[in-house]
Amino acid sequence: MCQLLGMNCNVPTDICFSFEGFRARGGKTDEHVDGWGIAFFEGSGCRMFLDDQASSESTIADLVRHYPIHSTHVIAHIRKASHGGVALENTHPFQRELWGRYWIFAHNGELQDFTPTLSAGSYRPVGETDSERAFCQILEYLKTRFPGTQMPAARELQAALSEVSTEIATHGAFNFLLSNGELLFARCATDLHYIVRKAPFAKAHLVDEDISIDFNDVTRPDDRVAVIATLPLTNNETWTRIPPGKLLVFVDGEPLD
Amino acid sequence: MCQLLGMNCNVPTDICFSFEGFRARGGKTDEHVDGWGIAFFEGSGCRMFLDDQASSESTIADLVRHYPIHSTHVIAHIRKASHGGVALENTHPFQRELWGRYWIFAHNGELQDFTPTLSAGSYRPVGETDSERAFCQILEYLKTRFPGTQMPAARELQAALSEVSTEIATHGAFNFLLSNGELLFARCATDLHYIVRKAPFAKAHLVDEDISIDFNDVTRPDDRVAVIATLPLTNNETWTRIPPGKLLVFVDGEPLD
Repeated sequence: MCQLLGMNCNVPTDICFSFEGFRARGGKTDEHVDGWGIAFFEGSGCRMFLDDQASSESTIADLVRHYPIHSTHVIAHIRKASHGGVALENTHPFQRELWGRYWIFAHNGELQDFTPTLSAGSYRPVGETDSERAFCQILEYLKTRFPGTQMPAARELQAALSEVSTEIATHGAFNFLLSNGELLFARCATDLHYIVRKAPFAKAHLVDEDISIDFNDVTRPDDRVAVIATLPLTNNETWTRIPPGKLLVFVDGEPLD
Repeated sequence: MCQLLGMNCNVPTDICFSFEGFRARGGKTDEHVDGWGIAFFEGSGCRMFLDDQASSESTIADLVRHYPIHSTHVIAHIRKASHGGVALENTHPFQRELWGRYWIFAHNGELQDFTPTLSAGSYRPVGETDSERAFCQILEYLKTRFPGTQMPAARELQAALSEVSTEIATHGAFNFLLSNGELLFARCATDLHYIVRKAPFAKAHLVDEDISIDFNDVTRPDDRVAVIATLPLTNNETWTRIPPGKLLVFVDGEPLD
């Protein structure tokens, strides 16, 4: 199994605080040592850092921790290998292009006997994970269902993604985060929690490290930030568990109703 | 215009020395300050670092300079913007998937009136550069010409790429590097040079920084490394200029005859 971290904001925000707690679970406070990755959207562009080292030990994770990249959509993943060896091509998140946008995907869970026929389509996996196969299958489904050149509206996408995810989830636990830099989709199968931080801001304290932050010091009154994680990252805030089987879409720092 | 750097080796090798000279051209010894990027293949996996800052000043470039990532196929690019603003989505190299492999592309030159119809196909640009359009056009061409699920042989690919490149080059200067982690293609339109380093190894001294290396200290007798760059990176070695209009394919550290 693995753990997921996502962020969706109404203004570009850095993820340094949350990432500090999250990366500790990659070898220090938890056992997800088989690689890690993080993707930041900046406009329609996207930068990804992938590493097959444990995030708690990784030089690249040190950079991400200390270099404040400001982004409205972030997806990160720490891996405990199940399907596919420890290798860069099996490291989440994965990236592909659809409708002239990058799409980023990370998965937590394990799919059994999931071998969709993908060789004839537009998306093929490079590595050996069930996760990348699921991502390719999702994009293939979207491309076939919405064959136009424009991306459909958020609600249409949410409905379609919910449908294909439910189908894939018949093979096993299918928690995932998916974003195209404009929307962030979060599907819970077993564990996925979120919190929306907005004014009035308060202090937060990490579960995994003895580190606090007062969000009053680093925000403006109109800022709104949703953080989504497999398990809550702070121990003095109230996180909401996404109901199993539900797929939420986050826009501008909060889930659509 | 921009500058390109590529490396192709028979064993995973770090690019720290060459990158030190190359990054200086992004704002220190030359004017390519509008972003930079580098992609490293590790097996079939690929990691990319992209930045819209000048490479000579970039924190991420500091990491790449000092953190020896070992790779057999590397492509790097420093940008001086022509088509498309300074933004992450316009930063080379670009990445897509074809035949279950990642493909990485970086371009030096400027294409005029190059607006292929890409919306109906499998590859669409995300940013606004002529370069990303050319990359999508190349992949679309390969996918149509070789519709099977397997990648064709190096020679077939070389011939096809040469053909589509010549066509695209009617729009302007089309120097590029392209790799799928197994082969590295280098096309020269105006400026592209390479050197093959193999035993007996010697010392090399950078053009852009007063730094030398003795390759005897960092290699084994069977190592073979080809470095490809817009302009030679060292001033005490003999670099070969690729003839304009020619597309070479590098395998295991040297060009195929």
